[in-house]
Amino acid sequence: MDVIRENHPAKARLYVDAPLQASGFVTVTKEQAHYLGNVMRLPLGTVIALFNGQDGEWHGVIDALDKQGGQIALTDQTRPQTNSPDLWLLFAPVKKARLDFIAQKASELGASRIWPVRTEFCQISRVKDERLAANAIEAAEQTERLDVARIMKFEKLATALAEREDDRLLIWCDEASAGAANHNITTALAAIDPPKKAAILIGPEGGFSPAERKVLTQVDNCLTTSLGPRILRADTAAIAALACYQAICGDWR
Amino acid sequence: MDVIRENHPAKARLYVDAPLQASGFVTVTKEQAHYLGNVMRLPLGTVIALFNGQDGEWHGVIDALDKQGGQIALTDQTRPQTNSPDLWLLFAPVKKARLDFIAQKASELGASRIWPVRTEFCQISRVKDERLAANAIEAAEQTERLDVARIMKFEKLATALAEREDDRLLIWCDEASAGAANHNITTALAAIDPPKKAAILIGPEGGFSPAERKVLTQVDNCLTTSLGPRILRADTAAIAALACYQAICGDWR
Repeated sequence: MDVIRENHPAKARLYVDAPLQASGFVTVTKEQAHYLGNVMRLPLGTVIALFNGQDGEWHGVIDALDKQGGQIALTDQTRPQTNSPDLWLLFAPVKKARLDFIAQKASELGASRIWPVRTEFCQISRVKDERLAANAIEAAEQTERLDVARIMKFEKLATALAEREDDRLLIWCDEASAGAANHNITTALAAIDPPKKAAILIGPEGGFSPAERKVLTQVDNCLTTSLGPRILRADTAAIAALACYQAICGDWR
Repeated sequence: MDVIRENHPAKARLYVDAPLQASGFVTVTKEQAHYLGNVMRLPLGTVIALFNGQDGEWHGVIDALDKQGGQIALTDQTRPQTNSPDLWLLFAPVKKARLDFIAQKASELGASRIWPVRTEFCQISRVKDERLAANAIEAAEQTERLDVARIMKFEKLATALAEREDDRLLIWCDEASAGAANHNITTALAAIDPPKKAAILIGPEGGFSPAERKVLTQVDNCLTTSLGPRILRADTAAIAALACYQAICGDWR
């Protein structure tokens, strides 16, 4: 972040859970104060950027910093609020570093919900959602988005599918369609009207079970897609599918 | 890999640097023998798959394994040789885990060359190419590709650009075009005939310098592209660009 911001008026960018308004002050957490003061070594008076997912982006100056936290004096709104496309990522979680990675990358690529789902062949039994959230927030700070992906609790695939509204296109990245050129994700997405709401579904490394496949083939408003002839790991598949979606149907257009 | 291969005739898949032919034997390294015997716990007689980047994919049975290495008795060729698209990835390297990650993911996404290049704002001074190669080979084993990406030595951007043939399309992922919908990478790629050879260029987190930008804007056969409105980290940008290329111009079609 420090590199990107060398010539930037704001020397850091933070997500805060507080209203942002003219002449206001915002408190930052102990960890954020440590980041500003000790990691970035920013002196009092430095301009930083703030967002809260609702009030757009604001500039403010560092007014006070100590070991308990800090205070930022807001100056002006620099961007009005905009939201990322309404795009869920449903995925069978993977282990440790690659799970952090999925949360970071999905956040950078503008997912609105990040939802780990339990499938039959999923080998993970617990997911720390605070850790996913921390990764998603940090990525949102870096990537300059103005909203933050909502992290959903680890639940059964069936629960997520039941919560999906009928008009939310399900984009099933089906490992059994690997290499099927007629299911190529970009071709499939380019052939439809860009949906207002979508959910990408990535399976576990062992694939979906026969019972899950049967359910998925019967789901309404579902596009079965292929991510090419090679076997992709779950994290690579998630990033590839999110990028293709944003490029063809989302906010890269 | 063990999960993916639960119902697969070959219980592991290895890259070897040796000819593969009928009735032949192949020796595997100490590390590969450790992987087969101790990590995967495969008994003698187990069928595994082998590839060398030239002779397609072969099945063979584990004939001998000890602490020094092992021997595989080849049985039959299961796939003829095919090569990934002629697609280079040029990128300003990043630190540690994310550098390993780029090599893995570029390999999964079928890059033919992985080439770390030195740019003015690049903060890395050394790259361990053996480590990049190990990551690329491991990913090739997992992803079922039959070739292995060539890892190039860390050299100046100018050197890589000079080696690029005139008919190799340069796809410049230009952070200054972020959000410019008319440069959207998938739109730009869909508007041209799929090139036979291409090179994706990803800059460092500080972007390209004014001097580099001047050179790049004057390069022939260069497509300036955008990866959307958010700032992507270098590894995310590389994966996103490779996926979009393979989907629109490469072997996902």
